[in-house]
Amino acid sequence: MRTNDIFKHIYSYCKKFKNLFKQTTEGLKKLLNIPADFQIFFVSSAVESMERIIQGCCHQTSFHIITGSFGKAWAKYAGELGKNVLTYTIATDTTEFPDLQIPKEAEIICLTQNDTSTGFWIPPEKILALKKRYPNKLIAIDVVSSVPYVNIDFKFADAAFFSVQKGFGLPAGLGVLIVSPDVLKKTEALLKKKVIIGSYHSLKNLSEKALNLQTPETPNVLNIYLLNAVTRDMLKTGLAKIRKEIDEKAKIIYKFFENNKKYSPFIKTLEFRSPTTLVFDVKGKSEKLRKKLAKKGYILGAGYGENKLNHIRIANFPSHKLKDIKSILKYV
Amino acid sequence: MRTNDIFKHIYSYCKKFKNLFKQTTEGLKKLLNIPADFQIFFVSSAVESMERIIQGCCHQTSFHIITGSFGKAWAKYAGELGKNVLTYTIATDTTEFPDLQIPKEAEIICLTQNDTSTGFWIPPEKILALKKRYPNKLIAIDVVSSVPYVNIDFKFADAAFFSVQKGFGLPAGLGVLIVSPDVLKKTEALLKKKVIIGSYHSLKNLSEKALNLQTPETPNVLNIYLLNAVTRDMLKTGLAKIRKEIDEKAKIIYKFFENNKKYSPFIKTLEFRSPTTLVFDVKGKSEKLRKKLAKKGYILGAGYGENKLNHIRIANFPSHKLKDIKSILKYV
Repeated sequence: MRTNDIFKHIYSYCKKFKNLFKQTTEGLKKLLNIPADFQIFFVSSAVESMERIIQGCCHQTSFHIITGSFGKAWAKYAGELGKNVLTYTIATDTTEFPDLQIPKEAEIICLTQNDTSTGFWIPPEKILALKKRYPNKLIAIDVVSSVPYVNIDFKFADAAFFSVQKGFGLPAGLGVLIVSPDVLKKTEALLKKKVIIGSYHSLKNLSEKALNLQTPETPNVLNIYLLNAVTRDMLKTGLAKIRKEIDEKAKIIYKFFENNKKYSPFIKTLEFRSPTTLVFDVKGKSEKLRKKLAKKGYILGAGYGENKLNHIRIANFPSHKLKDIKSILKYV
Repeated sequence: MRTNDIFKHIYSYCKKFKNLFKQTTEGLKKLLNIPADFQIFFVSSAVESMERIIQGCCHQTSFHIITGSFGKAWAKYAGELGKNVLTYTIATDTTEFPDLQIPKEAEIICLTQNDTSTGFWIPPEKILALKKRYPNKLIAIDVVSSVPYVNIDFKFADAAFFSVQKGFGLPAGLGVLIVSPDVLKKTEALLKKKVIIGSYHSLKNLSEKALNLQTPETPNVLNIYLLNAVTRDMLKTGLAKIRKEIDEKAKIIYKFFENNKKYSPFIKTLEFRSPTTLVFDVKGKSEKLRKKLAKKGYILGAGYGENKLNHIRIANFPSHKLKDIKSILKYV
């Protein structure tokens, strides 16, 4: 098979998978400032992480802060897994972060720190404040489209997850799930109560294998290898520089749309505007604009769901270059 | 990111993912003779398929025919998912296929057609006979390491699954799950009874998305693209030729070990000997032999579990060349 040859040299690097597992998780811990006693698991997608967190951290009731389609999906999955699902939806045009009252029975707070569908950004300090107010509840954070830009203080977070095709610019098919010791304690407590927490990829099985630098299934070696390479690249560049560049690009794009007579940023309140997934209201011109840009080689996102025709979505990840951003704006 | 460039041209081929989904599933249906009314789902591994089948096809009781570690794992996962698990273990030194009496309460029969850990092969006609005797029970078949060689008659099978890193010679991280209309009927019946069948990757969600040529999560485009390419290659070569070559290689290897004074095939009864994953008893010399072969560039499997030091395992997939097999035997 020709395809075998393509990957031969990659596999030769990865003969010792345990070394690769160790390097990759250590690199991620360094890059994202993850405490030494946290564990990192390799799963297949961000939605899988949503499922495994609910199965492994929630006996009866989960609480979901919803700011777009991905938060909504997470709540839906929790329902499908038989949980009592409580939700609070933050309107995308809110001017203030709500004073959330989280019911006593909620065991875990699930939130989408940056919802790709709306470009709504929950400032990390709001998450920190939440954990301080509810120290006995677990907090699980979807950072799919904000990592590695977002600065999560893991002293005030219990689980976080992302997939590699956004900020890390890799092919889809690999998810990364970060969990605190408290998460694993909760899983043990559920097991004692005979709660079903899943099978091959239960947090318990993932944890036991990870302690031995293994995965429950034959690992996605190729993608883990690439993730390791990109993580090392990022460590070399430094996250400060990566963040600064993203800030600069975001500033240019938002400024452009604020000064535009026809179009405007969808999220009005500055502190809730995503620097990494920027959404703009283009008044029904989404398809026209996207076609025009595609001809120039730039593939932009359409609006999500009901906003398909009204929005365009511009990704601003480490791999997106300033000169491309400037080009895009020239053609808008 | 440099890695972005590597995959750019692959993605340019895959812009229209729905076309890729359609081509790949149609190609697999043609290659493996899968009926038109069956559905094919893309999941992340073979063990995920084990989980999804148990969740989606079994309310209370599953029956497992065990011939090695993978069958055992499947039964373990069913237990972790809260099912009443019945098992029948076939001894690897059996001379006859047992006359299985499957209890009335078993809703599904799970079997590993070719267990990679032992090289025990269940002849497909035994599966067919089982379904004829128990037409009202679902039959789910692990064909991880026998596909595309094995000839499954899907008129007498309800679910089958494999991962792409064995017979298709691709990087790990993608599983393929094939299901009959009866499987989806059973899933619907479970849902009506409020049984929890999983969330984003429940058979119901997978089916609904697949009908629209989509996956519930961002798809593993790279691996599906490669699977499509290999499937097309195999269709061009023809399965008859691929099977004939595997038979020829298997014959040479088994003959070598039968005539060897020190070593012997682990499975003694001819009809249960795997043509695709061949296991040999090398009387404690496994590590020595494997090191010697590794120096020549050939990576063989050690024995599985407790047989680590006593066995070597030789894979005989479409991508393994006759000349390499002959080289390996020269160095044994």
